[in-house]
Amino acid sequence: MPVYKAPLRDVKFLMHELLDAPAQLAKMPFYAENDTADGDLMNQVLEEAARFVEGELLPLNAVGDQEGCTRHDDGSVTTPTGFKAAYNKYRAAGWTALDADPAFGGQGMPHLISNVLVEMMNSTNVAWSMYPGLSHGAYSALHAVGSEELKAIYLPKIVSGEWTGTMCLTEPHAGTDLGIIRTKATANADGSYAISGTKIFISAGEHDLTPNIVHLVLARLEGSPEGTKGISLFLVPKFLVNEDGSPGERNGVVCGSIEHKMGIHGNATALLNFDGATGYLVGEINKGMNHMFIMMNAARLGTGLQGLGIGETAYQNALAYAKDRTQMRHEPRVNPGENADPIIVHPDVRRMLLTGKAYTEAGRAMAMWLALSIDTEHHHPDEAARKEAADLVALLTPIAKAFMTDNGFNIAVQSQQVFGGHGYIREWGMEQYVRDARIGQIYEGTNGIQALDLLGRKVLMDGGKKLQKLATILQTFIEENEGEDDLAAMLDQLGKAANQLGSLTMVVGQKAMSGPEGADEVNAVAVDYLRFFGHVVYGYLWARMAKIAHAKIAAGQDRDGFYLAKVQTAQFYFAKLFPETKALAATIKAGNESLAVDDRMFGLERALVGA
Amino acid sequence: MPVYKAPLRDVKFLMHELLDAPAQLAKMPFYAENDTADGDLMNQVLEEAARFVEGELLPLNAVGDQEGCTRHDDGSVTTPTGFKAAYNKYRAAGWTALDADPAFGGQGMPHLISNVLVEMMNSTNVAWSMYPGLSHGAYSALHAVGSEELKAIYLPKIVSGEWTGTMCLTEPHAGTDLGIIRTKATANADGSYAISGTKIFISAGEHDLTPNIVHLVLARLEGSPEGTKGISLFLVPKFLVNEDGSPGERNGVVCGSIEHKMGIHGNATALLNFDGATGYLVGEINKGMNHMFIMMNAARLGTGLQGLGIGETAYQNALAYAKDRTQMRHEPRVNPGENADPIIVHPDVRRMLLTGKAYTEAGRAMAMWLALSIDTEHHHPDEAARKEAADLVALLTPIAKAFMTDNGFNIAVQSQQVFGGHGYIREWGMEQYVRDARIGQIYEGTNGIQALDLLGRKVLMDGGKKLQKLATILQTFIEENEGEDDLAAMLDQLGKAANQLGSLTMVVGQKAMSGPEGADEVNAVAVDYLRFFGHVVYGYLWARMAKIAHAKIAAGQDRDGFYLAKVQTAQFYFAKLFPETKALAATIKAGNESLAVDDRMFGLERALVGA
Repeated sequence: MPVYKAPLRDVKFLMHELLDAPAQLAKMPFYAENDTADGDLMNQVLEEAARFVEGELLPLNAVGDQEGCTRHDDGSVTTPTGFKAAYNKYRAAGWTALDADPAFGGQGMPHLISNVLVEMMNSTNVAWSMYPGLSHGAYSALHAVGSEELKAIYLPKIVSGEWTGTMCLTEPHAGTDLGIIRTKATANADGSYAISGTKIFISAGEHDLTPNIVHLVLARLEGSPEGTKGISLFLVPKFLVNEDGSPGERNGVVCGSIEHKMGIHGNATALLNFDGATGYLVGEINKGMNHMFIMMNAARLGTGLQGLGIGETAYQNALAYAKDRTQMRHEPRVNPGENADPIIVHPDVRRMLLTGKAYTEAGRAMAMWLALSIDTEHHHPDEAARKEAADLVALLTPIAKAFMTDNGFNIAVQSQQVFGGHGYIREWGMEQYVRDARIGQIYEGTNGIQALDLLGRKVLMDGGKKLQKLATILQTFIEENEGEDDLAAMLDQLGKAANQLGSLTMVVGQKAMSGPEGADEVNAVAVDYLRFFGHVVYGYLWARMAKIAHAKIAAGQDRDGFYLAKVQTAQFYFAKLFPETKALAATIKAGNESLAVDDRMFGLERALVGA
Repeated sequence: MPVYKAPLRDVKFLMHELLDAPAQLAKMPFYAENDTADGDLMNQVLEEAARFVEGELLPLNAVGDQEGCTRHDDGSVTTPTGFKAAYNKYRAAGWTALDADPAFGGQGMPHLISNVLVEMMNSTNVAWSMYPGLSHGAYSALHAVGSEELKAIYLPKIVSGEWTGTMCLTEPHAGTDLGIIRTKATANADGSYAISGTKIFISAGEHDLTPNIVHLVLARLEGSPEGTKGISLFLVPKFLVNEDGSPGERNGVVCGSIEHKMGIHGNATALLNFDGATGYLVGEINKGMNHMFIMMNAARLGTGLQGLGIGETAYQNALAYAKDRTQMRHEPRVNPGENADPIIVHPDVRRMLLTGKAYTEAGRAMAMWLALSIDTEHHHPDEAARKEAADLVALLTPIAKAFMTDNGFNIAVQSQQVFGGHGYIREWGMEQYVRDARIGQIYEGTNGIQALDLLGRKVLMDGGKKLQKLATILQTFIEENEGEDDLAAMLDQLGKAANQLGSLTMVVGQKAMSGPEGADEVNAVAVDYLRFFGHVVYGYLWARMAKIAHAKIAAGQDRDGFYLAKVQTAQFYFAKLFPETKALAATIKAGNESLAVDDRMFGLERALVGA
């Protein structure tokens, strides 16, 4: 059975030493007034969170995978054994309310803290965690743009966890391309709407954890324009709500089936049929795509945290196995009296383990930096500071989603490899991590879509302004540390790559404006560009972490080797992982040329490109 | 449901145009005498093979995954619905005998042909194909080193497919490290041996396809030395064989359980308990490891062909989906009257498809080159030619196993990505390819072990002689084509990388001899070295294929665009995949230094390295 211990030591290092988070949060009146920015309080909350996930969620992970969800003939869905009991404990302990608005029953803790909670939940049970995870996305959108009336009825229920929420976007013919959805809304006489259509791939779309489910649904109001500009967002409860707030009449939305999937078996992925279901407009008519992105951005970071969380636990389990499993002999011998040494002595095994550790710790640093930036974006008293933070959040969100889920999947695969043949056997649990991690690269916008969002929308569309802000942060750090011998080699690599990111962006940007093929040039290199960008961000964070660690070591404060490990992991990162940028620079420069192949290659009956 | 069409056009291109195989094989008396080297005959056999796999194996692939195998209380195992009927058709058509020795009922066809058959079988049903696959490995070892008596009794049954064979190596505590196995052999008075011990992960170890199973088992004869030098190989039939050749008394080997695995559900992975089972020595006492490697080398190439086969079918299905699925609009529009264009117009989708195509076609070229070299090694009349071929086979086998399975897995993952959310759903079949492909990287010697075999044993142990022979082949090709404008850019990249492979080998070789840490230096870089090496081999083959294709185009013989596709895929390979060598060169140069971290990093209670 897999093991997991929440990485609290690392989290505290990042929170206090890298980010100086309590001091940053104390500048924000919202947290100061709610008394939720206190460092000791945040530590305690995270320790409590660790106990919850280790004690309640971890034991249900394999159960959920093996049992899966069951749909009954009436459209109801039963979750795996133990899921509901764990959910009730989670609610009772107040976790659903952790970072929610106190005006609706929330505890008003920083996103920084809920971010760590979500990482830990994903380390122990992705499928389970998606029930409250989706709910949180629905909360975000409703809180941001819902009417006061809707908020008063639904937010307290969602915040308390009494009800959960969903995001209903995808249709059979429309995944990436939401502009072509067919679900329709028709105005009723009472101000509500009748919603009809079929939504698929609705995570947590039906279940037995709560007596009601609040669906947020994209639909086209009759008479609205074609495409994304004619889409509105509606709230469709599974049960209509009585005057007293209790669930009343069953609404016209029914789970038609649940999917059989590669992984996350414990989460019900529902096909939902809306048949004249009563819905309520959320936000403005025809602004549904904008409102949806409030949920979606939260969901993207949450998905990135799935990659991070699975990467952490896969690494931990590979490490435990590598220390325990003996196989082959190493010189000098570790077990001279026995016939084999623990496999952790073999450098190739260390390479696999260090890959997991280096990507995970950098990912955690980025995620927490991003989460603190979300807090800053929402609550900093200074408008310029809010704008700076918002730009950073916009830039880093697609990287957090794609880079962390790609790395998380790769770590799961490589950690499985450490187990040899045992990694392929279900009872060891490693293959579940691979299956569960895979979805993170696909949903909430495929990682290819994230890359287009980064390069096309976030970088090129504003002429590189957001990118320039980040470049200035990096450049300032590099300049401040010139002459630091301990960091010189890293900063040299980082500086060159950061400059190269700028020049590559210029090259792609020029091609992008060069005519009708410009969009293809962006599309051709976006995935490699995001990966290059991710390495620059991780390289920056590793250099910053190494700087702090060097200072602690120099001050004689490295009692347990934690800081030496930070320095050595940073060195590993720059020696073994960062060089991927050399390949990526070449493939980005190669552009679209080698992709614009003759259509007959693909057996196409007519020419497609340039047709 | 997944689709698959055997890539006969490409196979014929490689067989006739790249390898000039009929002429090469005609030089070998064995094939000349058996009339099995005729080009038309080989084409016909492969067309027949394509019909078999498409018609019989493909429809059973999902069935096998969903049903899996069932073990009963008596230790017997039932294979999935249809497996036995397909096996009977396979036998009846003579496929089990295809490349076997006519002296034992075989058809004496070249390995080149059976290699293609195995690729096609793996494209359509890996789990099913492992039953005859393992049998073939057992055939190879028994044919090479078995006594005439054993061969007379068992080989005709294995060749005809009446019985199947297995390889019993792994034990619970001994996978990579076979020197520490505990299974014991005790001499009986009649010249046979009593075998006792537990073997795990025995593919095709128990099933209902045939009335008998022939296990080849590694065990230590009482009194033999410790380690690999004290291991012998034994033949242990499930049923002892009567005088008339029919299965008789049940032998003391029983399937104790079958594993629940990530994939290849249709193949029974058995734990076998040997309890004083009667066994017969195969080859010489204490030479078991050498004899085992006869099977193992066959199994390694066979495993590489799993990666190749799954890569091909995953690519084909992604291509079909990408032409059918419409999503987003492309400028210029392909479907101007409809609301979306087929996703194959998007360059990032083409990048994913071309990655599959480029790795698969190069892999097929390497596998067929290797297979023809095996034919040459065994049957060429000239001893020097046999030795040359043997060296090439030795060098390329670990690359074929590791590079093809790593690429095959990555292609399966990337092809699944083309499907978006549908790729994660079982009914589309893509997620099964990912799960089935994963085992190829693990078994028959993990890919890490393949890398050590390549760098440590095949390259460094003979002072680089085998490597030098390959380098000469490449250098000759490059020099012969100097001044060919069409190839200049590719040959420039290839030549530089080939030189770099030499210099990297020198650097690692020097470190390897530098003292007790030398072994760690090899271990630290072997995986990256194998990948670098693989790219050099694939680059060479792409350049050769491009040369042939350019000539055909220049001669006006490219009617259907096949040769243009070869040229463009070669260009894609050098533009987008080959540049990985830039990163690998850096990580190989970085060596072991960043891996030799302080042991406290891993929470080790005592120092391990340098202890």
